[in-house]
Amino acid sequence: MRVGVLTGGGDCPGLNAVIRAVVRKGTQEYEYDFVGFRDGWRGPLEGDTVPLDIPAVRGILPRGGTILGSSRTNPFKQEDGVRRIRENLAKNEVDALVAIGGEDTLGVAARLSGEHGIPCVGVPKTIDNDLSATDYTFGFDTAVGVATEAIDRLHTTAESHMRVLVVEVMGRHAGWIALHSGLAGGANVILIPEQRFDIEQVCDWVESRFKVRYAPIVVVAEGAMPKDGQMVLKDDSTDSFGHVRLSGVGEWLAKEIERRTGKEARTTVLGHTQRGGTPSAFDRWLATRFGLHAIDAVRDGDFGKMVALRGTDIVRVPIAEATAKLKTVDPKLYSEAGVFFG
Amino acid sequence: MRVGVLTGGGDCPGLNAVIRAVVRKGTQEYEYDFVGFRDGWRGPLEGDTVPLDIPAVRGILPRGGTILGSSRTNPFKQEDGVRRIRENLAKNEVDALVAIGGEDTLGVAARLSGEHGIPCVGVPKTIDNDLSATDYTFGFDTAVGVATEAIDRLHTTAESHMRVLVVEVMGRHAGWIALHSGLAGGANVILIPEQRFDIEQVCDWVESRFKVRYAPIVVVAEGAMPKDGQMVLKDDSTDSFGHVRLSGVGEWLAKEIERRTGKEARTTVLGHTQRGGTPSAFDRWLATRFGLHAIDAVRDGDFGKMVALRGTDIVRVPIAEATAKLKTVDPKLYSEAGVFFG
Amino acid sequence: MRVGVLTGGGDCPGLNAVIRAVVRKGTQEYEYDFVGFRDGWRGPLEGDTVPLDIPAVRGILPRGGTILGSSRTNPFKQEDGVRRIRENLAKNEVDALVAIGGEDTLGVAARLSGEHGIPCVGVPKTIDNDLSATDYTFGFDTAVGVATEAIDRLHTTAESHMRVLVVEVMGRHAGWIALHSGLAGGANVILIPEQRFDIEQVCDWVESRFKVRYAPIVVVAEGAMPKDGQMVLKDDSTDSFGHVRLSGVGEWLAKEIERRTGKEARTTVLGHTQRGGTPSAFDRWLATRFGLHAIDAVRDGDFGKMVALRGTDIVRVPIAEATAKLKTVDPKLYSEAGVFFG
Amino acid sequence: MRVGVLTGGGDCPGLNAVIRAVVRKGTQEYEYDFVGFRDGWRGPLEGDTVPLDIPAVRGILPRGGTILGSSRTNPFKQEDGVRRIRENLAKNEVDALVAIGGEDTLGVAARLSGEHGIPCVGVPKTIDNDLSATDYTFGFDTAVGVATEAIDRLHTTAESHMRVLVVEVMGRHAGWIALHSGLAGGANVILIPEQRFDIEQVCDWVESRFKVRYAPIVVVAEGAMPKDGQMVLKDDSTDSFGHVRLSGVGEWLAKEIERRTGKEARTTVLGHTQRGGTPSAFDRWLATRFGLHAIDAVRDGDFGKMVALRGTDIVRVPIAEATAKLKTVDPKLYSEAGVFFG
Repeated sequence: MRVGVLTGGGDCPGLNAVIRAVVRKGTQEYEYDFVGFRDGWRGPLEGDTVPLDIPAVRGILPRGGTILGSSRTNPFKQEDGVRRIRENLAKNEVDALVAIGGEDTLGVAARLSGEHGIPCVGVPKTIDNDLSATDYTFGFDTAVGVATEAIDRLHTTAESHMRVLVVEVMGRHAGWIALHSGLAGGANVILIPEQRFDIEQVCDWVESRFKVRYAPIVVVAEGAMPKDGQMVLKDDSTDSFGHVRLSGVGEWLAKEIERRTGKEARTTVLGHTQRGGTPSAFDRWLATRFGLHAIDAVRDGDFGKMVALRGTDIVRVPIAEATAKLKTVDPKLYSEAGVFFG
Repeated sequence: MRVGVLTGGGDCPGLNAVIRAVVRKGTQEYEYDFVGFRDGWRGPLEGDTVPLDIPAVRGILPRGGTILGSSRTNPFKQEDGVRRIRENLAKNEVDALVAIGGEDTLGVAARLSGEHGIPCVGVPKTIDNDLSATDYTFGFDTAVGVATEAIDRLHTTAESHMRVLVVEVMGRHAGWIALHSGLAGGANVILIPEQRFDIEQVCDWVESRFKVRYAPIVVVAEGAMPKDGQMVLKDDSTDSFGHVRLSGVGEWLAKEIERRTGKEARTTVLGHTQRGGTPSAFDRWLATRFGLHAIDAVRDGDFGKMVALRGTDIVRVPIAEATAKLKTVDPKLYSEAGVFFG
Repeated sequence: MRVGVLTGGGDCPGLNAVIRAVVRKGTQEYEYDFVGFRDGWRGPLEGDTVPLDIPAVRGILPRGGTILGSSRTNPFKQEDGVRRIRENLAKNEVDALVAIGGEDTLGVAARLSGEHGIPCVGVPKTIDNDLSATDYTFGFDTAVGVATEAIDRLHTTAESHMRVLVVEVMGRHAGWIALHSGLAGGANVILIPEQRFDIEQVCDWVESRFKVRYAPIVVVAEGAMPKDGQMVLKDDSTDSFGHVRLSGVGEWLAKEIERRTGKEARTTVLGHTQRGGTPSAFDRWLATRFGLHAIDAVRDGDFGKMVALRGTDIVRVPIAEATAKLKTVDPKLYSEAGVFFG
Repeated sequence: MRVGVLTGGGDCPGLNAVIRAVVRKGTQEYEYDFVGFRDGWRGPLEGDTVPLDIPAVRGILPRGGTILGSSRTNPFKQEDGVRRIRENLAKNEVDALVAIGGEDTLGVAARLSGEHGIPCVGVPKTIDNDLSATDYTFGFDTAVGVATEAIDRLHTTAESHMRVLVVEVMGRHAGWIALHSGLAGGANVILIPEQRFDIEQVCDWVESRFKVRYAPIVVVAEGAMPKDGQMVLKDDSTDSFGHVRLSGVGEWLAKEIERRTGKEARTTVLGHTQRGGTPSAFDRWLATRFGLHAIDAVRDGDFGKMVALRGTDIVRVPIAEATAKLKTVDPKLYSEAGVFFG
């Protein structure tokens, strides 16, 4: 048995931990061979491989990034994509694929498995934690940790000076990072994409905070938006992957708060620091267990499935179902956090 | 409505986050008053109180320890304990208690609620994560993080030098910290109290590790024990709380490995660094949510219950049930980790 | 003997460590009394005091910010400023002042000492490390640490993806933080205010980096500027203290690199996270020793002086001299770092 | 020109940063070739080499350990050692050596340069900071940081519980790590090898600390010793390098304090966690500059010298002088810290 492994989509701490667990268990317990495909689906599409065995995965557990590289290549958007993948798998004598990635990468795995009989097992990956089938995805805890540490550092400035401090965190469509880091960091306002905010309400919270001789910390997800008519985003462009890029809500917010309240405001934009670096212990544990269970699914011939966390258990769910719906922040959960606003 | 709050048992990062959430939500949403009892059950027993309102909980979220102090005082071991508690609650016009603590502290709350009609809600706390009713307890993630960071640092020494590195972590009866940090840190041997280890097997793993030009890292829970006849603990004493204190398994292991393999070994004993300091983001989130839901239970008059984590939900379970059985490491889970040994 | 203490200017990790050392040694060894003045020179100007004794400084060593508050109030710009200070010092029976602050705060201390006979000792504080009389100022090491950790995290993203990563760090007039964190973090381009950069050269370095299959990390001080004609800053405003605020060089750079090279670029703006939070061990050590030696200067009646670090020694220098000239990055030192560019 | 590089002695964060800087500057600016010798002086002695060029040093800056391996092999204790080194250098066409190491490793370099005409430049390395010719050595700041973070975590336990917390840190002959981390961490007692401690005085400090309702933290260097007659070390053995190994002063102290004061005491032994892992920003900066200046010394033909830090400058000093005398903690400096004891 020879198993191919690939990683697709954006960077996410824990990818290497998955790869290592897959290879260690597959080699030692099931005597499988492995081959790495480079840069997500580009690898099997172009037959670009890299050797993958136990020495290759030594020491990678604590490292961010992915030794296999990544891309957002979609074989279904390429001429003859499926045929070329099939050929390259055959040429490399690959019997099954473990695909580690987000919605897009796994969506390809689901179709290859379901429609084309190419045996794939999925491992879910999204720093944003917005996948409905699993309690958590790896990388999320690390991102929340980075954001929380930043907020912690801002508190002392908030105590000493009378400034509004705005922190822009990741989260284009879901506010999980903002919500968790905002709660953990003791933010005074948390703004998420799921619920348009009222800039007047934000300014009220800001001003009520100053009254207790303490400066407010505002955590805002990059995808958060004010109510209709309250904001004109200064920059609406699309990035090279065709995603809309809404840069600047943090800076916009700082300026708008300054303008409306007369208080100085400063912005921190954490950017890609949230998705790089060594994974947290939680993420390494989760990623390792995902890897161990993914190779078990291969052994069981349980294809078209992905591994998922439920409580403390790792289960298997159909990829297609799992990626169908974005997991956004429940309004009830968001309002639970509201007790700390202002 | 006036609610008393107390914290009992050993130190655990997140205690202050619980207190803050209880007081913030109780004050702002339910207009309750609060009183803090000092040093666990000693507080209501002796009527030792401290003011507890929103200013008192400001800034405590990221801080380890507990602003209320702690002790292991058990009112059922004191003459007239229940009566004195009842009197002191009456004197302070306290209508309900939120008790934050481990098995012992919550056991008292269960009996006070169940047998004596004193309305208590429990919040579970154990750094060791060994409570069966909840997926995780706060403090555990922080402890695992501290231990994992220590193991990370040892890896470079392991690469450069040909020494065995032994890390002793907490866990007298359950090996959760050893298992999680050992897996997250990429340890080569993990020893837990649930399963007696064979020192010969340990030495085999150690030697097989040296063969790949890499020094082994051994993570051992303080309560781990070798097979019968393999060890005479150098020091068997009881601490001031009557618990047996088995110090020294880490150092014993290092010496025994040196003696048997001829390789040098060095020990790191993390001790109380695992249970102090700022809580991780995960633990602040969990502790905060526990606090929010505990005060909801008070409002609902749902006494004799404790809050618990199930997946991503906070639920309520009877305290008595919840503390009945120690949650130890499942042998299957431990053997899952075995693929990384040696 | 009764000594007043105040902290002025921007936030800086280590301020509390200075205050604690001054009070501990002054109280225990010299039996002085202390009084804290609130918010820099506003305190003695308005007679706004806070009690300052050993219990007041307990536990503050690891905390960022300042328990005394801060401001940028300049008594020489206030009517009757000197007279009012003299009166408030007399009213509080203050015999000497320890002023902890940057160029502005210390400049006031120098004039009060030199021209008006008000006995002041200075402790230098600038996160930017741009004070010529001392090898280092406290807070700087912490800021460099925060920036370096951010750069570390970006490296894994740089390895996995083909994006330019721009990090904007503090440093309006001096590039010390950019230089140290850029070198420590292994940045591929470091841009500092002391030397106008050529955007074409920056793009050359960026492109040469991509050739070794690695994405470039560009560290830019907030005060760095391109050559004449290469940049129009989008926003030139002044903050409430009258300082020119040049926000946005990081974002400008990312966009300009995208435009010129066709590569995607992402920006991280660390902002105030660099000046908040717990001080590094180095900064606590330096701040503590500054405090111990400042109170020695008071005891010796050595006024008009400030403490300074020379090698591993703490010395005293005239405040006036010390603050006369900005310590900028030596071109030779900057060019030493150039070996790592590109 | 072809330059050999080797690293000797104990592990120390920053070794890789030196190697990288030497190779980057030597290759890019001086067009030198490099060869790595494995495991300290064992490499040139046995002709064991490893390729060393720019790709080989990519990504190693933030990593602990040394890519060249290390040992304590002393060629002067080997038959024909010098001749064999000379032959292996000739065989590998090596014109000069950069030796990175502590007293022993540099002592060999001094003799090879001085007595045998083998051109060596030294880079000083000691985690203990006990080299007299330089203000600081790299690795020290990282070790102090690890120890300080541990002490920070213990403080919350100290606040909540009434226990004595003992932390054993590195420092066999010099107390620099204990002194710096103890001061930075706010320890209540600091014990160093330079001055025998009086266990009765220690217990007095411990008890006076409890009086302010706070538990004491005792930092002890591994080489600290009580006064004559107060202690019998339970274990006096020599390690494989012939150094005396005095394990256990931390644990001994905890037990002795328990016995004498009746208070519980707990020990943390940080061990090798202090000398592994990623170097601090300060250490990376220092190690990088040492490397840049070491290769400049090679270019200048300035052999028999080592680089050293003086203030913020890197200078060159004769190796022989530099390693002649151990830099111990000045009694005046130690007594300066005494104001924080008890």
